[in-house]
Amino acid sequence: MKKIKVAQFGLGPIGIETLKLAATKPWVEIIGGIDIDPAKIGKSLADLTGLPGLAGAKVHRSLDELLAAAGKPEVIFHTSVSKIRAACDQIEPMARHGISVVSSCEELLFPALRDPAAAAHLDATCKQFGARVLGTGVNPGFVMDVLPVCLTGVCRSVQAVHVQRVVNAATRRGPLQKKIGSGLPPAEFEKLFSEGKAGHAGLKESAALIAHCLGWKIDRLTETCKAMVADHDITTPHVSVKTGQTCGLHQRGEVMVAGKIVITLDLKMYLDAPNPHDSCQIEGEPALNMTISTGVAGDSATVSAVVNAAPRILKAPPGLLLMTDIGVPSFA
Amino acid sequence: MKKIKVAQFGLGPIGIETLKLAATKPWVEIIGGIDIDPAKIGKSLADLTGLPGLAGAKVHRSLDELLAAAGKPEVIFHTSVSKIRAACDQIEPMARHGISVVSSCEELLFPALRDPAAAAHLDATCKQFGARVLGTGVNPGFVMDVLPVCLTGVCRSVQAVHVQRVVNAATRRGPLQKKIGSGLPPAEFEKLFSEGKAGHAGLKESAALIAHCLGWKIDRLTETCKAMVADHDITTPHVSVKTGQTCGLHQRGEVMVAGKIVITLDLKMYLDAPNPHDSCQIEGEPALNMTISTGVAGDSATVSAVVNAAPRILKAPPGLLLMTDIGVPSFA
Repeated sequence: MKKIKVAQFGLGPIGIETLKLAATKPWVEIIGGIDIDPAKIGKSLADLTGLPGLAGAKVHRSLDELLAAAGKPEVIFHTSVSKIRAACDQIEPMARHGISVVSSCEELLFPALRDPAAAAHLDATCKQFGARVLGTGVNPGFVMDVLPVCLTGVCRSVQAVHVQRVVNAATRRGPLQKKIGSGLPPAEFEKLFSEGKAGHAGLKESAALIAHCLGWKIDRLTETCKAMVADHDITTPHVSVKTGQTCGLHQRGEVMVAGKIVITLDLKMYLDAPNPHDSCQIEGEPALNMTISTGVAGDSATVSAVVNAAPRILKAPPGLLLMTDIGVPSFA
Repeated sequence: MKKIKVAQFGLGPIGIETLKLAATKPWVEIIGGIDIDPAKIGKSLADLTGLPGLAGAKVHRSLDELLAAAGKPEVIFHTSVSKIRAACDQIEPMARHGISVVSSCEELLFPALRDPAAAAHLDATCKQFGARVLGTGVNPGFVMDVLPVCLTGVCRSVQAVHVQRVVNAATRRGPLQKKIGSGLPPAEFEKLFSEGKAGHAGLKESAALIAHCLGWKIDRLTETCKAMVADHDITTPHVSVKTGQTCGLHQRGEVMVAGKIVITLDLKMYLDAPNPHDSCQIEGEPALNMTISTGVAGDSATVSAVVNAAPRILKAPPGLLLMTDIGVPSFA
């Protein structure tokens, strides 16, 4: 089996988990990592992951230093930012070296939504230098976009797509419990959301990807977010929430086409949420009603989606890719 | 919008439905049909479909006559046979003209299973002449293979894949009600199945496609089929079944890898089946449990899968393609 040389950009919790999963794959050879944190630069990936097999791979302060010290990876796993512009700035130099990138950047799921110029530029760079770049994850990247799109493949007509995701955030990592506002006064959380400083990133991208695949021209794409308010005191290993404080969010995206709401994405992510699940209804012929009971767990699934995508993007033609344009998602 | 020139090979019930659906698509231009039935040759597709817009397109007795009379289609919808060898014989000349083909042939879903030599030959022809060939449908082609594979895309490990499909055959077309043995003595149906003359085609292909995508080397692939026995008299517009006679089938495929059963596909298709549904459990991390309540209706969905695949295969590189190698299924 020919191995894929891999490096990791961003060594936060998701980056470390990505590395640990990648290290289990017989088709992966990990050659190094990149992070700007002075406390990590120069350390071995074995120290950061606890995996002795990675003792020979080090953390570098930049792509150039990685290339000079460890050679060129075929794929970089990029898990550092949520915003399209920051992601493009970091990924552009990788693409110019012909290195392909799988990123957890939420806005990269459908990059043309917020920054069509940056997306077109990165796409052109990829094509010029033979690189593939893909944004993916579990959400965005799967349960609220790719999976609903996949269901429409057996439909002769589609009038509307409705998706619901309910996540019990008490089972998730600390940063996520904070990102959903845990412990804040509800008005303060909603203000942070309106300033783009809290909430789930990528819901609009999910909606835009569905519309794109169905050939629907979006007239209006809206997003709202309300605080979920704790009706009891909640303590997790990461946060402590009193009754009446924010314990999570209820975020909703809607797409209007020709005067009708045709896509609704409804996300509830809060501490102690009962009955977590992912579900999707396709209004069409045939009508479809799908449910994944207990839902798809977030952090582990995101890391899996990122790692599993590596062999698939290498089979695709160079470019800034969409999840729906490459092969069907699959364990790899 | 650039239209795709399309022709239809096989003008049985599924072929007619394929044409009728294709005719609703703004991206399709139907240029003709091919069938060996003397009663259909020379007729207009308007006569066969009831769609006046198809008055200019005729039924031809062969590919050569279609090409001479109507020019070259970019895509042929092929809905005539279930067996790989017969399909390859019919499709090979199309591929030699650089015409791409979407086929409902069940064994074409994973052609290397039963006839790797024919599959390799057709693949080489496709690559030489720039054609794409794909086998698809709802089952095989979606609910018992592509959709389960898609779910594994967010898994960090997969130990086993289990799929169940229950179809109320009373709601399906007449030929299907006969194919599942309706009205036969159970022993006679089971004998017909063992001779390859009855039952659901493609279950082994579904299992093989899942194993292929997961990188599992199959040690043993088995298929069993038992008659479902009517516990009451059943009359449909197509068949009449007495208590004690066959009213459908219970077909099951199993894949063994390294001494363990790792894929089970369980299909019950019978008259008056209660609680029709499609469901899938991924044993892995995360474990996933998906259900489509009421299930994906067969005939309409198969036709939809075939037509929806046309734009997707044209974006893929030439070759004999797998559903999982091209873009994610999507309404088109």
